[in-house]
Amino acid sequence: MRILADQVGEQNRRHEERHRGDFDFLASRLSADGHDVDALVSKIASLQIAVPSWALGAGGTRFARFPGGGEPRSLEEKILDVGLLHALNRSSGAISLHIPWDIPKNASETKALANELGLIFDAVNSNTFQDQPDQEFSYKYGSLAHTDKSVRKHAIDHNIEVIEYGKQLGSKALTVWLADGSCFPGQLNFAKAFQRTYASLQEIYSALPHDWKLFIEYKPYEPNFYSTVIQDWGTSFLLANKLGEKAFTLVDLGHHLPNTNIEQIVATLMMEGKLGGFHFNDSKYGDDDLTVGSIKPYQLFLIFSELVYGMENPAYSNPTPAWMIDASHNVKDPLEDLLQSVEAIKLAYAQALLVDRDELEAARENNDTVMAQEILQNAYRTDVRPLLAEARLRAGGAIDPVRAFRALGVRKQLISERGMKTVSTGL
Amino acid sequence: MRILADQVGEQNRRHEERHRGDFDFLASRLSADGHDVDALVSKIASLQIAVPSWALGAGGTRFARFPGGGEPRSLEEKILDVGLLHALNRSSGAISLHIPWDIPKNASETKALANELGLIFDAVNSNTFQDQPDQEFSYKYGSLAHTDKSVRKHAIDHNIEVIEYGKQLGSKALTVWLADGSCFPGQLNFAKAFQRTYASLQEIYSALPHDWKLFIEYKPYEPNFYSTVIQDWGTSFLLANKLGEKAFTLVDLGHHLPNTNIEQIVATLMMEGKLGGFHFNDSKYGDDDLTVGSIKPYQLFLIFSELVYGMENPAYSNPTPAWMIDASHNVKDPLEDLLQSVEAIKLAYAQALLVDRDELEAARENNDTVMAQEILQNAYRTDVRPLLAEARLRAGGAIDPVRAFRALGVRKQLISERGMKTVSTGL
Amino acid sequence: MRILADQVGEQNRRHEERHRGDFDFLASRLSADGHDVDALVSKIASLQIAVPSWALGAGGTRFARFPGGGEPRSLEEKILDVGLLHALNRSSGAISLHIPWDIPKNASETKALANELGLIFDAVNSNTFQDQPDQEFSYKYGSLAHTDKSVRKHAIDHNIEVIEYGKQLGSKALTVWLADGSCFPGQLNFAKAFQRTYASLQEIYSALPHDWKLFIEYKPYEPNFYSTVIQDWGTSFLLANKLGEKAFTLVDLGHHLPNTNIEQIVATLMMEGKLGGFHFNDSKYGDDDLTVGSIKPYQLFLIFSELVYGMENPAYSNPTPAWMIDASHNVKDPLEDLLQSVEAIKLAYAQALLVDRDELEAARENNDTVMAQEILQNAYRTDVRPLLAEARLRAGGAIDPVRAFRALGVRKQLISERGMKTVSTGL
Amino acid sequence: MRILADQVGEQNRRHEERHRGDFDFLASRLSADGHDVDALVSKIASLQIAVPSWALGAGGTRFARFPGGGEPRSLEEKILDVGLLHALNRSSGAISLHIPWDIPKNASETKALANELGLIFDAVNSNTFQDQPDQEFSYKYGSLAHTDKSVRKHAIDHNIEVIEYGKQLGSKALTVWLADGSCFPGQLNFAKAFQRTYASLQEIYSALPHDWKLFIEYKPYEPNFYSTVIQDWGTSFLLANKLGEKAFTLVDLGHHLPNTNIEQIVATLMMEGKLGGFHFNDSKYGDDDLTVGSIKPYQLFLIFSELVYGMENPAYSNPTPAWMIDASHNVKDPLEDLLQSVEAIKLAYAQALLVDRDELEAARENNDTVMAQEILQNAYRTDVRPLLAEARLRAGGAIDPVRAFRALGVRKQLISERGMKTVSTGL
Repeated sequence: MRILADQVGEQNRRHEERHRGDFDFLASRLSADGHDVDALVSKIASLQIAVPSWALGAGGTRFARFPGGGEPRSLEEKILDVGLLHALNRSSGAISLHIPWDIPKNASETKALANELGLIFDAVNSNTFQDQPDQEFSYKYGSLAHTDKSVRKHAIDHNIEVIEYGKQLGSKALTVWLADGSCFPGQLNFAKAFQRTYASLQEIYSALPHDWKLFIEYKPYEPNFYSTVIQDWGTSFLLANKLGEKAFTLVDLGHHLPNTNIEQIVATLMMEGKLGGFHFNDSKYGDDDLTVGSIKPYQLFLIFSELVYGMENPAYSNPTPAWMIDASHNVKDPLEDLLQSVEAIKLAYAQALLVDRDELEAARENNDTVMAQEILQNAYRTDVRPLLAEARLRAGGAIDPVRAFRALGVRKQLISERGMKTVSTGL
Repeated sequence: MRILADQVGEQNRRHEERHRGDFDFLASRLSADGHDVDALVSKIASLQIAVPSWALGAGGTRFARFPGGGEPRSLEEKILDVGLLHALNRSSGAISLHIPWDIPKNASETKALANELGLIFDAVNSNTFQDQPDQEFSYKYGSLAHTDKSVRKHAIDHNIEVIEYGKQLGSKALTVWLADGSCFPGQLNFAKAFQRTYASLQEIYSALPHDWKLFIEYKPYEPNFYSTVIQDWGTSFLLANKLGEKAFTLVDLGHHLPNTNIEQIVATLMMEGKLGGFHFNDSKYGDDDLTVGSIKPYQLFLIFSELVYGMENPAYSNPTPAWMIDASHNVKDPLEDLLQSVEAIKLAYAQALLVDRDELEAARENNDTVMAQEILQNAYRTDVRPLLAEARLRAGGAIDPVRAFRALGVRKQLISERGMKTVSTGL
Repeated sequence: MRILADQVGEQNRRHEERHRGDFDFLASRLSADGHDVDALVSKIASLQIAVPSWALGAGGTRFARFPGGGEPRSLEEKILDVGLLHALNRSSGAISLHIPWDIPKNASETKALANELGLIFDAVNSNTFQDQPDQEFSYKYGSLAHTDKSVRKHAIDHNIEVIEYGKQLGSKALTVWLADGSCFPGQLNFAKAFQRTYASLQEIYSALPHDWKLFIEYKPYEPNFYSTVIQDWGTSFLLANKLGEKAFTLVDLGHHLPNTNIEQIVATLMMEGKLGGFHFNDSKYGDDDLTVGSIKPYQLFLIFSELVYGMENPAYSNPTPAWMIDASHNVKDPLEDLLQSVEAIKLAYAQALLVDRDELEAARENNDTVMAQEILQNAYRTDVRPLLAEARLRAGGAIDPVRAFRALGVRKQLISERGMKTVSTGL
Repeated sequence: MRILADQVGEQNRRHEERHRGDFDFLASRLSADGHDVDALVSKIASLQIAVPSWALGAGGTRFARFPGGGEPRSLEEKILDVGLLHALNRSSGAISLHIPWDIPKNASETKALANELGLIFDAVNSNTFQDQPDQEFSYKYGSLAHTDKSVRKHAIDHNIEVIEYGKQLGSKALTVWLADGSCFPGQLNFAKAFQRTYASLQEIYSALPHDWKLFIEYKPYEPNFYSTVIQDWGTSFLLANKLGEKAFTLVDLGHHLPNTNIEQIVATLMMEGKLGGFHFNDSKYGDDDLTVGSIKPYQLFLIFSELVYGMENPAYSNPTPAWMIDASHNVKDPLEDLLQSVEAIKLAYAQALLVDRDELEAARENNDTVMAQEILQNAYRTDVRPLLAEARLRAGGAIDPVRAFRALGVRKQLISERGMKTVSTGL
């Protein structure tokens, strides 16, 4: 199934008049405050968020998985699904693949399909946290950190293979998330596990093309429940520094202990030029993988406020971070969920763009905490939805993607095409 | 110092045109969506948030306290300070006193002053967590839960005395927050401490006038760091049920363990008719007592969404909760901080009033999680500041209270009147 | 496979001399301090911990499950496995079944097998968090709290069916753990969900035989990640009180927010006569379901200190709580893991029995915090392993169960009997 | 007041027979297991824990402080108090001073007094979190990170002055704990605050004698409640690396977010040669500053297990960490509290010394998680108190320091010497 420009146009006609009024009013206010509204709309339009291939079907927990229907049965159908999102929001122009779930049978055909839908391939992801059927070496006790050299080699080779697939599709980065760690005190020699991980990553790093990046995730727990080899940004950063200039830290918003000040971590990593990218999601308790912005939208804004500062800072050398979603859809339609996530990300970005940086720095210099808060919250409290809608409209997308998705009967048609009981590979 | 209507009017003239445009546009949009805008403005205007007398000076931590200047040196000056806030925001029409810090020397004069400023007296608060100079019995090891009957009696008598002061001023509720608990495993017999607390509260309860309420706070830790006698809402609710129909649970937003779903607690208490009131503040780690809405504004909105549902539910018998702030101002001007807090509370209330209840219940019945979120976030993302400004304007307040506070040079004048080194009683 | 008394005896011969010396020395010290050592050994021997039928195979996470080998393929094999544990530790004389995973085909044969192994059937557990193949109504959006009456009826009927199976086997309690809740703000009407849950539980309660108990679990999150209908002990307790005297709260150690003082909850529930039982496990982050005592053994001791106080308090009417393990074995042999858990539970119990209650209450009365800690820690720091070994020895069990399990080659034999790739039903 | 050897000896006579039996039995068991008991006792004896000068009086919270009595009124009396502890436990042979609270009036006399009592001076601590009376520049908005260069200079100069005092007394390290951070989003430019801190630390570092170390503490929150400039080990480590080889990270056990795996941080820092020292205490919620080992004794053991591994690893270059207590005594006699803390630290150390490293590494190599836990817990469950008592006895200390402290009436005499209402400088 594909969504045609005409179909989107027809949906937009129902919202266009109201949108026009909303946008014009907001634009007049922002202009009066000194903003270049067209530049804002352009910046918002150009932010593209990669969709993870593993999150196009229903997610699950250790207790259960409740499938929806019409889930993609193949890599092609996954790409088509992302194409549907992109047709609606013009902001999901990239896909992040997970190997071995998404091995392209014919890379050029896969690339052509993506190209046709306006999609590129963002970072490729390896999987060393599960055993594949008939896998010779088990990851039960780790992968890159395993005590057994054979298992480590197996995991290293897999990562190098993932790079190969990525090269075929035009990816420019490898994301490594390690489940390695321990469930019980005593199980692991922390230092040896770190050293083995480092040595394994060195081998992967040396297989990296010169224009690629290596993204190293960190996570404090799950699936291991006592320790994780790369437990926090400090450990990931230590590894990235040891490895070299192509290695970076990747921040998954759900991978933190309670109450962590994530925005400060983001600021520190950008300051050091080591922020590689993001896995966006939201959470209340742990790595809940909920829709972005559904729990803590203000924190998301604060993170984007740091990102905008870092990206617009001429003294900084941090490359533009990779923007990716990593979420799980247990009780929502995966595609609707992703539309909501992208919207939330871009709202936060738009709000962050409205922050008056000069006034903010002046307030900070004066330790005027009240005014610093006023400045941030003035941006955050502004209803920037018309800016996003306008950006979509100008790019040929839908004014209201979720409602368009429903009005067009997308899920219904996917179910009729693919059936009710399909199961997409992924988590 | 007092702020005159003319002064406020003069400040408003600078913002009036813009406000008029903002409000008219928003009103037209809300009307088109079926809202009765005048009714909204009225509801917003009528929400009055009591200011705590103990938070009009600089707060501190165990490490240090950094005074500002111009802090109120007496109960009268505290009332005048709240009058300043109320003159600006027309939403701080009540004050919550703390005994023994705020014992009125002449109750009728105190009342007359408050009356003149448009203020009433909300719940009175007792203090059994500190020893007053030359106090015969020490609260070092507890008050209402103390093992020594004499100490308990001392604390009971103090609470009854607080009720007496409250009666003189027109208060209708007593708030009991107990620091009682233990710092170390073994220190306390949990059950006996509970029973002693219950027996003490019974005595206080029996001294309560028939039209009064007793609010029982809960808190998991601090100043005791192992256990607290009333550690959670369940314990407070258990006590309130045992005590009788005048006893209620009071929710302080900062008194919860990490990640607690506070809005659900609020919903449960309202369902059971036992929600007595609120201590508003915000926090990232513990009982940080930060400006309301400065850290988790979405959570605040979700709480108000439950409150509006409960207050408008004809099947519910919960009395209107007491709205009070409990915050500490370590790095902000206390009055500016309070203005920001009141604004944040009323924003959340206004957003909650915009939630389409019928659509929301319909989405819930259909387990349409995506749409339920859309409905909530549509309300939350609306920039409702013009509604608040209009409500203030109609009531004679300032369009922009914080900026008016500064433009009028309030703090400067307070310092000139009171001096730089005053220390307000409080925390 | 069964373990014969002779085999255990042979193993014990290797440890007996050392054990005899250890025990005699400890016994002399304890006697000198006024303890009745034989009574202690008897009490320790009589504590029987029910093993959950769902935890006899490898557990898993949403990411992966790494099977071991020799897992039980049927209810009979599960019972045999518990029989193996009990033969070694003489402390696992009960099994807690989970329906529909453990439906007995022939209840009298099942009972006879258990009887032969010295096992009884503790609480039966219902499952309304997963859909069974071809289930007519889905629990995706809840069970007892579902908005759809048909789903609720389905779940109620299932629970009543579980009671029926329990009656056939001699169980005396039903444990209800509900996954019901929501993943997103707005998804659920908290009050209605509570009321539906209560109404559903009433129907189940009315189907309960007169000598049965209903255990109501609480849990703050997972598999729902925003709210849970029964989020905490307060909510479970509220339901148990509404339902009647056969309803009780069940405490699962892993079902708490970070830093919760669980021992105080236990004390409060016992004081109110509403503590129904335990699901023992340990955790560092969330519901990690780790081996009991592997992370926070001191907290476990503090909980048992409250339990011993409550059980020995003549003024209390709380029935003896049901002792059950609820754990997941992702990286350990499930049977070895269970042996370690039972050992940890009984160590905590033995230590708690050593607490000098009179001295402790005296220290508390005097607010002698230092001495209260000394008294507790004196008990906790005592190496009570010889008491447990002696209790096992006298009951015909192994001095060192884990080492006996290995020396006897139990897992090896189970694999040879059942194969390497069996998958036990469970989590 | 001083405690004489005779007095200690007299106390010991009451416990000596029992102790002799306990020790001999344990020694025989340990010897049979291959341990060199005399070497163990020696190692235990040689571990000296520095006592913080700021924790010899009653601590407090922002709510209240309840003094005990007999608190030291001067640096000399503080040193005498530590001398009392050391006379009893022979393990508190060092004191860590805090400037400006402990400025020596006559350094050589101060040193002589300490020397006479067998005490040396461990790390000196600066104070840039409080304003001293009539201080020209305020630390309200930070010190080394302040936006105002003059304030930074003031704080730098203070630190250099602290080094000077330390040099006079024989200290070899400066501990810097910064309260710098922010209470509200927006208040601080994270990167600039870091850079200013780094620049300030460079100036301090360059004033450091060649044989000194700089210890950099980290802390996630309090007294700032939104962000802290050095929020975690990663930030401290980053600074230490930038500064040079004399800069190290200092771990305060209470300075972590909920559920942090501290032992892994310790292992990582030792691996990198950057673990400078410890501030021991215990906590359940935040920086509760409770008696060491009173809440999580197993975690303390796990930390010491990493420390022993690191200290005995010939491939490691980490210097021996500085062992210091940092606690607050709100409801206990400070001296008794410190005796309990030192005991808990040394118990954990002794247990860690018992871990069979070869077996543990073998179990790890085989991923034998069950056995790895058995090995650790075998050490932890051993009652090692006789080893500590023996070590004290051989060094002239008390078999049971807390009971000796009471039997000798120390506090009573201190009160009679110093009065009931003294207030010790400190927290």
